[in-house]
Amino acid sequence: MRYTLYYWPTIQGRGEFVRLALEEADIRYDDIARTDGGEDVMLSLLDDDRVAQPPFAPPFLKAGKLLIGQTANILLFLGERHGLAPESSGGRLWTHQLQLTIADLVAEVHDAHHPIAASLYYEDQKREAKKRAANLIGERLPKYLDYFERVLERNPRGSNYLVGARVTYADLSAFQLVAGLQYAFPKAMARLGKKRARLIQLHARVAERPRIASYLASSRRIPFNEQGIFRHYPELDS
Amino acid sequence: MRYTLYYWPTIQGRGEFVRLALEEADIRYDDIARTDGGEDVMLSLLDDDRVAQPPFAPPFLKAGKLLIGQTANILLFLGERHGLAPESSGGRLWTHQLQLTIADLVAEVHDAHHPIAASLYYEDQKREAKKRAANLIGERLPKYLDYFERVLERNPRGSNYLVGARVTYADLSAFQLVAGLQYAFPKAMARLGKKRARLIQLHARVAERPRIASYLASSRRIPFNEQGIFRHYPELDS
Repeated sequence: MRYTLYYWPTIQGRGEFVRLALEEADIRYDDIARTDGGEDVMLSLLDDDRVAQPPFAPPFLKAGKLLIGQTANILLFLGERHGLAPESSGGRLWTHQLQLTIADLVAEVHDAHHPIAASLYYEDQKREAKKRAANLIGERLPKYLDYFERVLERNPRGSNYLVGARVTYADLSAFQLVAGLQYAFPKAMARLGKKRARLIQLHARVAERPRIASYLASSRRIPFNEQGIFRHYPELDS
Repeated sequence: MRYTLYYWPTIQGRGEFVRLALEEADIRYDDIARTDGGEDVMLSLLDDDRVAQPPFAPPFLKAGKLLIGQTANILLFLGERHGLAPESSGGRLWTHQLQLTIADLVAEVHDAHHPIAASLYYEDQKREAKKRAANLIGERLPKYLDYFERVLERNPRGSNYLVGARVTYADLSAFQLVAGLQYAFPKAMARLGKKRARLIQLHARVAERPRIASYLASSRRIPFNEQGIFRHYPELDS
């Protein structure tokens, strides 16, 4: 079955966590908003009264009759259907738990440059952003990075992956998390990464997977930029 | 099987979404941190190197050998095992999607009184909180409340519940969301509630369910207070 991904066409954003899973699982999909007139298709679907189960916001995925919203929920579906999560229900819950923890950090990273309102320009909340980014780098990032390092360290099947002995969507998302943090906060991550070697190695391990490597080298991978979640504002990095 | 809930003993917080599901499903559970010495048990478990699948933070639930973290993930588990979600995989994904959207709003409500850092006192970020709360009430709340109203309006099985014709954990969480918002922002919700009658009615419908009603009347229900997520600071309400 060919899937349709609905997400903003000019940013990685939350859609990127879905794109990475689609690419790793070698699923045929249309990134619809990046096609001619596709963004209007996405926006009109969001406004369509006939959609009985409307998504709140992109990303959402059309898979046959299913229209699935919420990034972690889309990954729950893809993981189960396409072998990017363990077979056992306990293993799936654990994988999803890690994904939801990654999602919490992603939201905090976004709010570091938009602490007052997503609808206001960064320039209009820059002073507050400096305070929040300092807290993110000083307190929150170490706490989250230590957590994922700990999960890798304690994995009974070894530290190559977060869950068990095979790659899951949580590993793909951890790759994207580290990639985004290294783009947004190169100084802080150079320092913080030293003590979280397993997590940094996981990022490299995922990047070298054949399908991920070819995706990252393709035009399908949108470069990081200052409209997405991970933004490089030098004044926020330290 | 008797479950153990691990959550902070003096607030509703995110644990309340789990408590409501446990109560509605009539599950026997220990709210461990509210028992003698139980909070230390919770904290030492968070620091226990032998826990192979450690939670990042409370709430987490022990169910036999499973230790499940992340509120929405716990509800995914309870919904499937205890009849608080549809049988179909599509129905379960839709219910979870709504839960994750509720969780997003809950995080925004928390950050309205803590826009700079969760670790700082409200008093130390009051000025920024006023700005963020104004945006929450002016932009975000209407957008989210309209969304849930729309979901109720479009439910093919009627507007009594968010999903299908029977109560799910998403309805219980929507109840808690409305209850918390009405506590934190009475002025704003009196105004905003008028145009979202289905959602306000859902709150009343859930409150009247026998098990929920008896839970709300019991000492197990911790009153709202200014240490939780939903805080009533009159200066933030408008």
